Amino acid sequence: MSSTGPTTRTRVEVLDGDKVSRREDALATEEPMELRLAWPGRRAEPLAVTMRTPGSDFELAAGFCHAEGLVGLDGLDTVAYCTDAMLTLEQRYNTVTVTLAGPPPRDPAPRYGVTSAACGVCGQQSLDELAERDYPPVDESLTVDVDLVRRLPDLLREAQPAFSRTGGLHAAGLFDAAGTAAVVREDIGRHNAVDKAVGWTLLNGRSRAGLALVVSGRAGYEIVQKAVAAGVGLVVAVGAPSSLAVDLARRFEVTVAGFVRGERCVVYNRPDRIVH
Amino acid sequence: MSSTGPTTRTRVEVLDGDKVSRREDALATEEPMELRLAWPGRRAEPLAVTMRTPGSDFELAAGFCHAEGLVGLDGLDTVAYCTDAMLTLEQRYNTVTVTLAGPPPRDPAPRYGVTSAACGVCGQQSLDELAERDYPPVDESLTVDVDLVRRLPDLLREAQPAFSRTGGLHAAGLFDAAGTAAVVREDIGRHNAVDKAVGWTLLNGRSRAGLALVVSGRAGYEIVQKAVAAGVGLVVAVGAPSSLAVDLARRFEVTVAGFVRGERCVVYNRPDRIVH
Repeated sequence: MSSTGPTTRTRVEVLDGDKVSRREDALATEEPMELRLAWPGRRAEPLAVTMRTPGSDFELAAGFCHAEGLVGLDGLDTVAYCTDAMLTLEQRYNTVTVTLAGPPPRDPAPRYGVTSAACGVCGQQSLDELAERDYPPVDESLTVDVDLVRRLPDLLREAQPAFSRTGGLHAAGLFDAAGTAAVVREDIGRHNAVDKAVGWTLLNGRSRAGLALVVSGRAGYEIVQKAVAAGVGLVVAVGAPSSLAVDLARRFEVTVAGFVRGERCVVYNRPDRIVH
Repeated sequence: MSSTGPTTRTRVEVLDGDKVSRREDALATEEPMELRLAWPGRRAEPLAVTMRTPGSDFELAAGFCHAEGLVGLDGLDTVAYCTDAMLTLEQRYNTVTVTLAGPPPRDPAPRYGVTSAACGVCGQQSLDELAERDYPPVDESLTVDVDLVRRLPDLLREAQPAFSRTGGLHAAGLFDAAGTAAVVREDIGRHNAVDKAVGWTLLNGRSRAGLALVVSGRAGYEIVQKAVAAGVGLVVAVGAPSSLAVDLARRFEVTVAGFVRGERCVVYNRPDRIVH
């Protein structure tokens, strides 16, 4: 079984009632990607390894660096696969180097993994750290009709090609107030799908003004944090938000709509962006 | 809004058809937990920060260290909240120190976050690294009737108290061949729920022999890796496995059943453990 893009074919046994059948099935491809960061005078060094679904790797790399506060719209020089001749072809396509035009505005320390943080973390501290990053205010121009908010999960699903084949991929999309998708991206990780969608705007010089972020699953801290970093003022989730996601949304004036299913949705902050 | 255990109450606005109502709602609590590792002669140093749902924190810490190959059944000395007097109460309960009886069998390097790995990672390399860890073979004693396999997701849900309130928590449980739960744990992160369940067996001196791991969502690489580390031979997932999860299951002889819904389930490896 070897990866061939976002889905991978494999043999399975299906037990359906009393029937047993053997057939080919499609799985969501999951592969680690090593992200390296460089800038003039500093050679590429590993920043993070993320398990992701191959495809839109440069968007993922750009979006990740942006969410981490390492690069703005202008600071990106190049994004490229590793060209180290010692690597196999498969390894090359799992290593992406982001080169910045200059040193990043903050230390490229990972948010997870080993930290040198002082003993003791709490949600408040995480929020305070984010506040220190000096994000621009989120977009206040966008308002969306409640009927469209309720349709956004379906519009997202319709724009998602691999999900119907594997059932194992999350999606994230940026939609305008008319329900038109600027970009929809898939990944086995919800946070990666968001990075890919935001990364697409970065690599294409597009603003996120007037766009809502729609995610296929739940909205945890990471999803709302990425929305804040991207300046997006409205997050629509099919599933539930977490407590820290709502704390963060309230701190940064982001509207979060969750449990968006059928005729219903639950608004956790700033309901004024949803018109009814 | 402050955390009060696994769920957090907050005010929301519900838009249902033309009706707008304001009410209290329960969110799944998400808080960062810093995990520190110590052993005789080495003071506690940060190992990882994970976003988790408070509750069963010591089990989470023990299970995480076990899955990372840092501690076996016998190597655990103590697990405790941080007692640093400089910390607020909230911070103390978000910092857990695992103290080992002696040095760990491998370097406590994080699997994610900044790595010092040579340029280039691929799925094959990840699998090879795991193979080097020299896991004991997974449990070959367990076989489960297909009818029970299909009921396991329901049995898991019935044992999950917070999900019905928040809709935002994953669950993982260890069940025997009669369908009896040894342990069921919840968390906003699927991988944390698995660590908590396995950690419970470690802290209670229980073997995982004869037990199947049941997870409420999808089964990615991390879930199967934790099953391998715990010696569990059967993983039952409500959702889809990923390509790397199935690769790993095949390498380590783990049975993976996915899409377990109603009368149906799909078996990705070693179907002989499921009797029909």
